[in-house]
Amino acid sequence: MIILGIDPGTATTGYGIIKKIKGVEIIKKRGLKCLEYGLIKTDSSLSDGERLRILHLQVSRLIAKYKPWVMAIENIYFFKNLKSAFPVSQAKGVILLAAAKKKIPIFEIAPMQAKMAITGYGRAEKEEVQKAVKFLLRLNEVPKPDDAADALAIALTCFFLKDLTEIKSGRA
Amino acid sequence: MIILGIDPGTATTGYGIIKKIKGVEIIKKRGLKCLEYGLIKTDSSLSDGERLRILHLQVSRLIAKYKPWVMAIENIYFFKNLKSAFPVSQAKGVILLAAAKKKIPIFEIAPMQAKMAITGYGRAEKEEVQKAVKFLLRLNEVPKPDDAADALAIALTCFFLKDLTEIKSGRA
Repeated sequence: MIILGIDPGTATTGYGIIKKIKGVEIIKKRGLKCLEYGLIKTDSSLSDGERLRILHLQVSRLIAKYKPWVMAIENIYFFKNLKSAFPVSQAKGVILLAAAKKKIPIFEIAPMQAKMAITGYGRAEKEEVQKAVKFLLRLNEVPKPDDAADALAIALTCFFLKDLTEIKSGRA
Repeated sequence: MIILGIDPGTATTGYGIIKKIKGVEIIKKRGLKCLEYGLIKTDSSLSDGERLRILHLQVSRLIAKYKPWVMAIENIYFFKNLKSAFPVSQAKGVILLAAAKKKIPIFEIAPMQAKMAITGYGRAEKEEVQKAVKFLLRLNEVPKPDDAADALAIALTCFFLKDLTEIKSGRA
């Protein structure tokens, strides 16, 4: 089972792809590995439409490459700066579209849910979450930048909290 | 010159397509005709991703059919209910994407701008705007429903206010 985690943003969208290793005990939260993580960046000199086009294309490429069973995406209801809610939601729209085109189920994960699932504490600091992600995926270093680490945390949370047993592979 | 106007929404997105008639005096705001207007509806029982997929597909079909020179879309910064800002912005994302894929320039029009351009008064009532749209496009009746009339108003405003002289046809 492969999960694509996404932390959507205007200038940068973090992504992380994790896989359940067959035959490894899941309850210990150790039967998972990271396939890839990184950032999709779009140039601020481009028009909004062109930036959305590039973001949609790059997410579609990740889906084509890894054929994830599910997409997990960060769900934010609170914005410090309300103005950023509009472009982030527009970005989220084209990301959800990329999954829907391939009939990939989408799970929305709130930041506090992720912190709780990963560290056991809903108000954990960013560094604690990143260390826990490194530990759970047995990475050699803390994943950077922050948006990519957040995307891995979203993917892990989806795996821990959601019932994915009925989801079949080969949808993408 | 063909302009596609869009009033984006969660359950329903209004659209209106207008065309400049060659050789008719534009200053009198009468050299325009309506090619089509209507609503794109998506079923609330569907997932968010599936609704976005349908919306994107329908807007892409309108673009393929009419090959508009520009897309004009309503830009809202204020929401009575903040929660609706997220789904409307997601919808807007996949609509902008449909235009960007065909390299169609996008103009964002604020509601007050449209009221001012169409009726001469920025706080005009909905009915006044609809009557003005009917008059300007020489329609037999006031366009209904409201979202479709709004989309026509957005398209007209784009034509009146924006400098479209450098935009070439045949982009779609």
